[in-house]
This record gives sequence, structure tokens and C-alpha cells, in this order.
Amino acid sequence: MSGNSFGTLFKITTWGESHGLGIGVVIDGCPPQIPLNEKIIQNMLDRRKPGGSVASTSRKEPDEAIIMSGVFNGVTTGTPVMIMIKNKDPHSDAYKKYADIFRPGHGDISYHAKYGTRDWRGGGRASARETVARVAAGAVAKALLDKENISICAYTVELGCIKAIERNLDVVSKNMFFCPDNDAAVDMEKRVKEVKSKGDSLGGIVEIVAKGVPAGLGEPVFDKLDADLAKALMSIGAVKGIEIGAGFKAPLLLGSENNDPITPEGFSTNNAGGILAGISNGDNIIIRVAVKPIPSISIEQNTIDMSKKERTISISGRHDISAIPRINVVCESMVSLVLADHLLRQRALR
Amino acid sequence: MSGNSFGTLFKITTWGESHGLGIGVVIDGCPPQIPLNEKIIQNMLDRRKPGGSVASTSRKEPDEAIIMSGVFNGVTTGTPVMIMIKNKDPHSDAYKKYADIFRPGHGDISYHAKYGTRDWRGGGRASARETVARVAAGAVAKALLDKENISICAYTVELGCIKAIERNLDVVSKNMFFCPDNDAAVDMEKRVKEVKSKGDSLGGIVEIVAKGVPAGLGEPVFDKLDADLAKALMSIGAVKGIEIGAGFKAPLLLGSENNDPITPEGFSTNNAGGILAGISNGDNIIIRVAVKPIPSISIEQNTIDMSKKERTISISGRHDISAIPRINVVCESMVSLVLADHLLRQRALR
Amino acid sequence: MSGNSFGTLFKITTWGESHGLGIGVVIDGCPPQIPLNEKIIQNMLDRRKPGGSVASTSRKEPDEAIIMSGVFNGVTTGTPVMIMIKNKDPHSDAYKKYADIFRPGHGDISYHAKYGTRDWRGGGRASARETVARVAAGAVAKALLDKENISICAYTVELGCIKAIERNLDVVSKNMFFCPDNDAAVDMEKRVKEVKSKGDSLGGIVEIVAKGVPAGLGEPVFDKLDADLAKALMSIGAVKGIEIGAGFKAPLLLGSENNDPITPEGFSTNNAGGILAGISNGDNIIIRVAVKPIPSISIEQNTIDMSKKERTISISGRHDISAIPRINVVCESMVSLVLADHLLRQRALR
Amino acid sequence: MSGNSFGTLFKITTWGESHGLGIGVVIDGCPPQIPLNEKIIQNMLDRRKPGGSVASTSRKEPDEAIIMSGVFNGVTTGTPVMIMIKNKDPHSDAYKKYADIFRPGHGDISYHAKYGTRDWRGGGRASARETVARVAAGAVAKALLDKENISICAYTVELGCIKAIERNLDVVSKNMFFCPDNDAAVDMEKRVKEVKSKGDSLGGIVEIVAKGVPAGLGEPVFDKLDADLAKALMSIGAVKGIEIGAGFKAPLLLGSENNDPITPEGFSTNNAGGILAGISNGDNIIIRVAVKPIPSISIEQNTIDMSKKERTISISGRHDISAIPRINVVCESMVSLVLADHLLRQRALR
Repeated sequence: MSGNSFGTLFKITTWGESHGLGIGVVIDGCPPQIPLNEKIIQNMLDRRKPGGSVASTSRKEPDEAIIMSGVFNGVTTGTPVMIMIKNKDPHSDAYKKYADIFRPGHGDISYHAKYGTRDWRGGGRASARETVARVAAGAVAKALLDKENISICAYTVELGCIKAIERNLDVVSKNMFFCPDNDAAVDMEKRVKEVKSKGDSLGGIVEIVAKGVPAGLGEPVFDKLDADLAKALMSIGAVKGIEIGAGFKAPLLLGSENNDPITPEGFSTNNAGGILAGISNGDNIIIRVAVKPIPSISIEQNTIDMSKKERTISISGRHDISAIPRINVVCESMVSLVLADHLLRQRALR
Repeated sequence: MSGNSFGTLFKITTWGESHGLGIGVVIDGCPPQIPLNEKIIQNMLDRRKPGGSVASTSRKEPDEAIIMSGVFNGVTTGTPVMIMIKNKDPHSDAYKKYADIFRPGHGDISYHAKYGTRDWRGGGRASARETVARVAAGAVAKALLDKENISICAYTVELGCIKAIERNLDVVSKNMFFCPDNDAAVDMEKRVKEVKSKGDSLGGIVEIVAKGVPAGLGEPVFDKLDADLAKALMSIGAVKGIEIGAGFKAPLLLGSENNDPITPEGFSTNNAGGILAGISNGDNIIIRVAVKPIPSISIEQNTIDMSKKERTISISGRHDISAIPRINVVCESMVSLVLADHLLRQRALR
Repeated sequence: MSGNSFGTLFKITTWGESHGLGIGVVIDGCPPQIPLNEKIIQNMLDRRKPGGSVASTSRKEPDEAIIMSGVFNGVTTGTPVMIMIKNKDPHSDAYKKYADIFRPGHGDISYHAKYGTRDWRGGGRASARETVARVAAGAVAKALLDKENISICAYTVELGCIKAIERNLDVVSKNMFFCPDNDAAVDMEKRVKEVKSKGDSLGGIVEIVAKGVPAGLGEPVFDKLDADLAKALMSIGAVKGIEIGAGFKAPLLLGSENNDPITPEGFSTNNAGGILAGISNGDNIIIRVAVKPIPSISIEQNTIDMSKKERTISISGRHDISAIPRINVVCESMVSLVLADHLLRQRALR
Repeated sequence: MSGNSFGTLFKITTWGESHGLGIGVVIDGCPPQIPLNEKIIQNMLDRRKPGGSVASTSRKEPDEAIIMSGVFNGVTTGTPVMIMIKNKDPHSDAYKKYADIFRPGHGDISYHAKYGTRDWRGGGRASARETVARVAAGAVAKALLDKENISICAYTVELGCIKAIERNLDVVSKNMFFCPDNDAAVDMEKRVKEVKSKGDSLGGIVEIVAKGVPAGLGEPVFDKLDADLAKALMSIGAVKGIEIGAGFKAPLLLGSENNDPITPEGFSTNNAGGILAGISNGDNIIIRVAVKPIPSISIEQNTIDMSKKERTISISGRHDISAIPRINVVCESMVSLVLADHLLRQRALR
């Protein structure tokens, strides 16, 4: 129990279900005197909002953030910042027919095993909608990191087997898939439309880069920076894999190839992904996450119901074809939260 | 600071440096009346001991575990179990020449940035030797899991670009690389010898399978079972990537291919790797970790010293050519620790 | 930072300021299938509401609890329960005149030292109004304890030097001071009126008894049951002292007098207050807390302002004359939270 | 379970039993570059050692501290500091006769209820001997606080009904009871001898003052500085009550008497005990703890055994007549640990 908090000093606790009254987050440990208002949060939330791309659901959620506490006269006070987003367009009735069936690829069956009960409306707490709270918190973490000139950017490097060849971060915000390769983005759109028409879904890979992270963040031996980043990102529902720097390519290299030579100007290469022995080394932090295809598909699937009887299911509700690109800002938020937390932890050392 | 603890209820705290007086672990939260003695721990430690394969260091450490507390009349009492392993064969002098140089691929430079000081003897706290404490704790976790018929096994599926084709777990303990494919193990040995003769090093991939895990372990939304596993494994020094189930293959699949159909007898496939929405689903849990090549190589490398002057370094001390296979039992231990912790967390629910 | 959470498994995180949009609590770790609705919470909140006695403020707060998440079909789901109470009647303008003055006995000066900024409206986060969140959470803890036949009752044993002689728990709810001695309650009312007319304030002593607590709750050596109770109660703003069982009388006894003899039927006396070596022994748990007089008084006091200049202050806002009896249900709630948490921790042992 | 850790950033985890191989503590989170050696720790331990006064046991324990990790070249490295004290003179046989009996006033009966098993040798983990680890950790905390000119002193203000009238801290180290009143100390010695001759035991009151604590330490709302101090001190076995500042006298005062007037030079009085709204206000922090009489007495007592049969017991082993004065340095250590932790937590804010 009690797994809904994240962080040690910059600590967040989220609450809410997909079709309940709302979703929110308490940020406990944000330093005082950080400029904060609803617009700052809204800008991040808007990047996660449904409707941004052909890949996303038709559910209409304005996702309006309300700061309920912790801000006075435009700055944080040091006390808990609670941000709430009300649910406006749930359509719970559409889920009634699945109330006694376990949807394949979803947490229905595992939640049932865990709790013996579950809120079946829109996936309840297991819905990707919970990530709205992560993004709201991420916006606050970013406000803190901004002051230290640390920036984080997540972008799509693969979607439905279409790979981005270029890494042009300038075009990331210029296409609907937050892809650093405009040509690839065009192909991605085609691929999404094609799969959508068949009632199927897609996965992909998101890369996150953090720039300006000072050397020295991360704690030996369990709370290593990469360990905390791995947890942060793997805790996002659709993520099935994480790699830092060379990642799964590292096993293919010799030590003499994988080691990053050190020069007075910095590292010659960055196979380490900016982290050595779990502590940031001053170079860019680079992470990639594998995102599985959305499990909700209209293609018929075999499953069972709560009485263990065989059933088939075809899911016709409103959902994304791919978690990408809406998941990108969620990844960015989780990385921001980890960095904000370790920044504060490191301050305590001095 | 204070990142040397792991777990919520089955909680461990490790201490010690490579060349200090010893290494150890306090296990706080082990239930009472679990049969435990030094032999149970020693059996696990022996699997990590140097000298088991051509890939490992010539450092001679008997790695004898002493149970200092928490066990009375052959069973745990519920109070902290402290297990200590003294360092017997450090040879610190061999490291003196590197005291002011940052070894590429090592934590020397990041530790220095973090603390402004560091114990340079054998890598200090950043040495892979710290994992001896993880294995000692893992042995205790395994003793607890045994009672629930949960078993965990780690094996080598890739080493120096040699892939295991078979997954015959019966042969894992029969070759020096803990490889489930005896033919591949023969090729791995050749590869290791070849690279060793050149003063270089290798990486690989370890797969871990946990069988008998009941459905329902894992906590939404941050302490998901896979999130905690990812952190646990990424906290091992040499690990640069983690994947669960289909992992980085999942983005290549359609939703209709990736979803595991559910039948009254269980799941037809296991792309989920035994975890849905962060909670175990009763199927085998399957994880793979990418292990980077050992950074200590005798081939000359470019680096800098503490005064930021250019230097070259050729590391001639005693070290492994590859973290595999000694890392395997460390992976097994970390997975055991996560499962033991979540098992206790789930008990509190009932 | 991040001190707004309490508990290990039954964990709460509170947020909100006296004059912000509202106050609330996230309860993370409540087991599933506990019957819960707003009425259960409201009943507890009503006992804390202003206006119940001559000692309390004229601020009109309906204190209506809204369950925002974690409850479905009348029972908890195992996911976070967020309970929110909106602020309806703040009157912040009344506090503007104190915005740059440090009120004696209040946290104004220490908050300013800590954060360099503060929400001066009604005391902000330091206001006793934050306890509304504790009581909402306490109601949920009580719902859990009810199932185990554990009951907790707090009552006034001293107010403004008037001591309750009797301990008749049946009359506690029958007088406005929640006093187990009706005659003393009459004297307390007189005393309160007299002091109120002089613009001064009063303190007192609250006793809390927990019945039906099974032996075995509490964790050696730091998370002892009495240690966690002491923290829980001392964290309430007005509390300046805690004693368990014989408490400050214990130093006056000989060991032969203080030890509680054990018989097959239980303990002959209860100087231990139901706790031995930090673990419940099955007897009633008995605690007393010293409550200081309310610091807001209309009598003129010497103080300084933010520029360190001498000032006088006479506080004429709406406040209680005494934290008792409104604090009683807060004490009851904090004890309930500790017991619920340790109950779950003990379950994990089995 | 897992209640053997204390602190958030300056975090300690203790292990060991009275008659096991040893007792120790892992300090995780001590900043780097703090001068530390075994002599610093030994000086604190020597103040806790048996044999210092007529009130203490005849058990001969040299209590030699060994620093096992975390210190290199005379300073802390930022990694865990493990300090171990071996048990040299246990005499476990003397306890065999009590193996199946519950000693009144001891944790035997509650440990048995909790764990279903217990290490009966010298009280096992419940022995006051566990406090040796607290003192070793306290010495490290003090080394950190010294750098900030924060000093902590504990002294006896009451023993066996003999009260110290004076508060002359200069004489505290000059009499065997660490009493700030030499005349009272003479009376205390008489009282102890008298009670000792009757086979009975005594309790008393210890006062702790912390000077030089900067304003701003402590976290709203649960991790208040006084709340954490209350937990820290109540977690010491023999403590049954805690009061801060005016404490249990506060309920006897009017608000106008209890409030500490603020002047440009500081507070005119210190009823708050240096803490307002849970945050240090810059004044001296003053705490008193009620210490119960030692439960081990040779006078015959009624009790039961593990089969619930009536028994009598007369405890003839080696034990103190009073926990005071050996407990004083334990109190001092716990206060030091809390302050060190909150000092680091506050640093993270800036």
C-alpha cells in the first residue's frame, strides 16, 4: 500500500481516478519563493491534452489546473502545493459493459487480484489519466529547475516502426508527434492513420535529454540518479523498457569503445548518458523508454470475465491509438521530478 | 544523501568500501521465525565470489558472512539482521597511482564532484564489491520467498555479442557463465579469453525470471512492481538498461500482437512479463538487463587528473573482464529483495 | 522540507491554509473494502467545528467534507482517498493589520525565519485550521479500527486549572467540554467566561484512552508505539507535553510500585499505559497531553515587526479562548492514525 | 516492521542485541569532510558506560567503538559510517532462568505477543544496551553540530524525588549524577544507596538544553521540530513523558502569561522552549523527560510464565538502580540526531 508518493525532498503524492470527481497532486517540499501560477502549469498540461494529434482520443478534457494551496502573492510559500484538475467529460456508461470483464493488456485482472474490488469506470486509478497529476507536478519541478538553468526535453524517436533519423530538437514542437525529424513525422502520421483504420494500436520509443545538470547529483548506492530515473519512467503505465546512454547497445561494445574518454573540456563521447556510478557527471543525461502499444483496441480479443468464463471483447470507447506523443510530456515531467529532488538532496550536503 | 537503504517493509541498509575493514548490510523488517544461518547466506555469496570463471578477477576474497544480530536459535527474531563480510585481500597500494586521476567509465570524477573528497582505494564505495552486501541480503529475502514457493533465477543470455539461443534453465549451473545454452557458453569462453589477451573488456545481457509470484503484488502508481524492479536493477553499477517482458520489442508490435490474451488457464502469451499496470498478474516475471563492459582495462585511455591536466591511464590491477557472470546473482538478489518487500506490503492489505 | 506526511503504511499527506481555497488530505494506504462515505467523516468533523462551546471562535465554517477519490460503490478501493474541505468564511482582511507584525506565541516569527515569506492570512499553514484535515483522516482510520473493535476516546481532564475528578466516560458527550466529570464541566464554563471577559485565554489537559488494542503493535526501536504517539500528538500546534501511563508521576515511584504485576487475567495496574518496550501489551493505552493557552488574546502584548521595531499588539479577530474542547477530536484522530498504521505494519509480519 | 531507522537526511539504522556479538549503527547521510575518529565517539560512549555511578550495573563493557566504514584520512567521505561495538561481557546464563517468564515492566510479554519468539538473553533487542548505538551516532551528529556552534547538554533535575534546585551547568560534569546542583547530587547519592540496599529502583527527570540552534529548523505540519524531538526521546526505553518549555505547567498559565513577549533583542521569556509552531525560534530549546524506575528489581514480584501460569520473580542479575545518569547522554544523542537531521533538511530549502 501507500505507493502513490514519489521523491524524498521534492515529494509528490497523487490522487484521483479517470472518472471520479478529479485528479490532483500534493507537492510537498517545494522551496519557497518560486514564482508559480496556474498558467505555468496549464502550459505543460496543454501539451498532454487529448486532441493534439491523430493518435489521440476524442475525449474532451479542458484539464484546467487549480492551485488550491501553497502559493501566495505569486510565489510558493514552502508549504504543500495542491493542484487539482476536475474531470469534466467522463462518459462512464460506456464502460459499464466491461465492468465484469478483464480487458487484455490492462490492469483489470491484476487490480482485481490485488484489491478484490475495482473502479471499472475508465480504468479507475490505472487509467493513463492519472498522469495529468504527474504533469502538473512536473511543471512545478521545471519552475525550480529553470532557476538553475536545467532544461529537459522529450521527443519521439520511433513510432510504429518508423524511426527518426535526425535529432533536430528545433523541430520537435513543429510536428504533431514531437519528433526531431520532420520527415519521419510525416511517415508516422501515415502509419497511425493506417493502423487506426484497422482498429489496432501502436507503440514507440521516446528519448529524453536533460541539459545543464550539474555534476554531483545522485546518491550511492540505491538512490543512484539512473536508478531513480528508471523507477520514475517505468512507473508510467505504458513503459516496458528504459535505457541510459548506450543502454542496450553497451553490451555490444568493448570496454575501450564504451568508456567515455575525459578531456579538460569534458567527455569526448557520452555512452554513459551523463551518469557515472549513479552520479551525474555534468554531461547531458540521455534516456530512452520503450512504450508499448495502447491495449484498448476495437479488434476482437479473447479474454475471461470475473467468473473465469471465456469471453471476447472489442473495445470501442474513446482512446488513443498510441500513447505517443501525449506520453512525452509525462516522461519529461518524471525526469524533472527526479532532478528537482536530487538537486535539493545535494544542497543538503554542502 | 542517505541513499543506502532499499525497500519499504523488507528494508536493507548497506555499508562499506572496497578496501575498508568490511562490507555489510542491516536487514530491517525480516519477519520472525524464518530459518536462517550463515550457510544459507554463504551459498549465495559463493556464487558471486571472484575466481569462478575466466572472466573474473584474481582478488582472493573468501567472503565469509557473519550474522551479527537478529538470529536466535536458528531463526530470525524479527529484529534487525546484520550480516558482515570482512575485507581480507585489499592490496590498496596498487591504487595509489590512480589517487589523483579520474579513471574513464568509473565514478571517480562524479564522486569527486559530489563530495569534494573520495576514498580512492579500489573504488571505495563505488566498487562492485559493495554488491556483496546485496547478495547477503538477497539470501535472506530468498529464504522468505522460499516459504511462499517463489523462485528467482538469473542467467546470461548474451556476452560479448554471443547470444544464447536456448533457454534451458537446467544447464545454467553447469557452465561457468550461468548460461542456459551450453554451446553459447563455449563460445563465450573463447570470446572472453580473446578479449582478455588484448587487455579489453566485455558486456552482456542477463535475464531474470521469477516463478510462482502470486497475482496482486505491486502498488499503484509510483511503487509499481516493475518500477521498483527497474530501480533495483538499475542501481547495480554496471547496468545501463532494463526491460520487462517484450521490453524494447514492444514498440515493434501492434496492440493486437502485444496484448496477452487471457484464458481460464492463464495468459496465452507473456509480452507483459508478468506485470500489468504495475501489479503482478500471476504469470512469470521476466526482466532483462543490459550490462556495460567493465571500465577497468589495461589498454591506454585518455583522461584528466584532479588538476584538470591531460593524462593517460592503463589499469593493470585485478579486475573482471566482464561483470557477467558474477553480476547474475546480484540481479537475482535485487529481484528477490523487491519481491520480498512487496509480498509484505501486500500482506498488510488483507 | 516535505514534513506534511504522516504514517508508514496508512499514510496521510495534508495540504491547505487557513484562508486559502480549502484544506484537505490524501490518505494513501487505506485497505480496500472499508465502508466509507461523507457522513462518516462529517460526524467527526462536526465534533471539531467552531461554535460548539463558549470557548470557541465565532468563525462560521460548515466544514463540509467531499470525498474526491478512492471510494467506489460505498467502499474504499485501496487507491488514495482524497478528502477536501473548502474554506467558506475566511475574513482575511482582519489579518492585514498583522501582516508585518510577529504575533507572540504564534509561528509568524519562526515561519518567517524558515521561509523568508509567509501567508499571513489567518496564520496560513500554521493555523489550527489545518487540523480539519487530520480529523477527516482520523475518521477513515477509525472506520478501519472499528472493524477490529478498537475504540479511542479523548476527554478533557483539566481546563484553566479546573480538574476533572471523575472519569465517567458516559458523560463525555453530554457537556460542552467533553469532560468526564459534569461538575467540573460547570466550573470550566464559569472559568472560560471569566477569562473571556478579560480578553485572555486558557490551556488544559486532554486524556486519550484507546481500548481493544491487541498486544503486539509497535516496532522496536525507534518506531515504538509510544514514540509514534508522542510525535503524532506533539505535532498538534498547541501541545507542549505528552505522558503515557504514569508519565511524569513515574519518577516519583519506586520500581516495585511502578511495575505492573502480571496475572493470568492481565495486568493488576496500568502504570505502563498499555505499552511495554514500545509495544502494546493488550491493556488500555492511556495518554495525556498538555495544551497551552491560545496565543491570540486581545490583551495588549509587546512584540516586534518585520523591521525589528518594537510594537504592541492586541488581537481582536475571531478565535477560541481555549483549544480545548475542539482539540480533543484532533487528539483522538492522531491516536487513531498511529494505531491504524501500526495495525497494518503488524499484519505484514504474519 | 522495519522501525530501526531514524531521521530523514541524517539517517541512522541500528542493530544488535544485549548478548549477541555486538551492537552497531549505520549513519547514512552524514555530509563529507566532517573530522571523525574513534576517539570522538569513545568520549561520548564513555559517558554512557556502566560503572560511573553507584546507580549503575556491575557489567564490565569497555564499549570500544570501531569505525568500519565511511571515514578516510580522518574525515567522513559522505558514504555510510558504520560504527560497531562488540559485546564482551554478556553472562547470558544468568538469564536462562527467566527464559520462560515475563519480567514485569519489561518488554518480554509484548515482544512475545508481537513476534511469537524472542531472544531472552539480557532482554535481547529490548535491552537498554541498544542505546550504545544511539550514543555512537549521537557523537557523529554532535561533530556536525559543533561546526555550526550548536551545543546540547543533558542533566539530571530530579532523581528518586530529590529535585535539583539550581541550574548550574558548570557543575554537571563534576558529580556522578550529572546534576546541575551539587547539593542535590549528594542527596541523590544517599537516596540511591538506600533504595539499592532494599533491592528496589528509582526514576527521575532529565532536562536537555540545546543552545545556538538557528531559527527556522523544523517542518510543518507533522515533522515539527518538537514532534520529532518527542518521538526521539520517547523512543528511549525508560521514558514515559516529554515536555517542551513550560510543558505541563503551560495549562496552568493564562495566554497573557504563557506567550513569550518579543523584543528586538529576542524573547523576554521562554515558555515556548525555543519552538513556535514546530519551528525553532532562535531561543534555547528546553525539554524535560520523565524516566521511569528500572523494572529489574530483586524484590519479589507477581507475574506469569509462557504457559500463563502464575509465578513470582526476583531479579538478581546485574542492572542499574536508575537509568539516570547513564540515560542522560542517550537523551543528548537523540536531541543531537534530530537537530542534525533538521539542519540538513533546512539546507535543502535555500
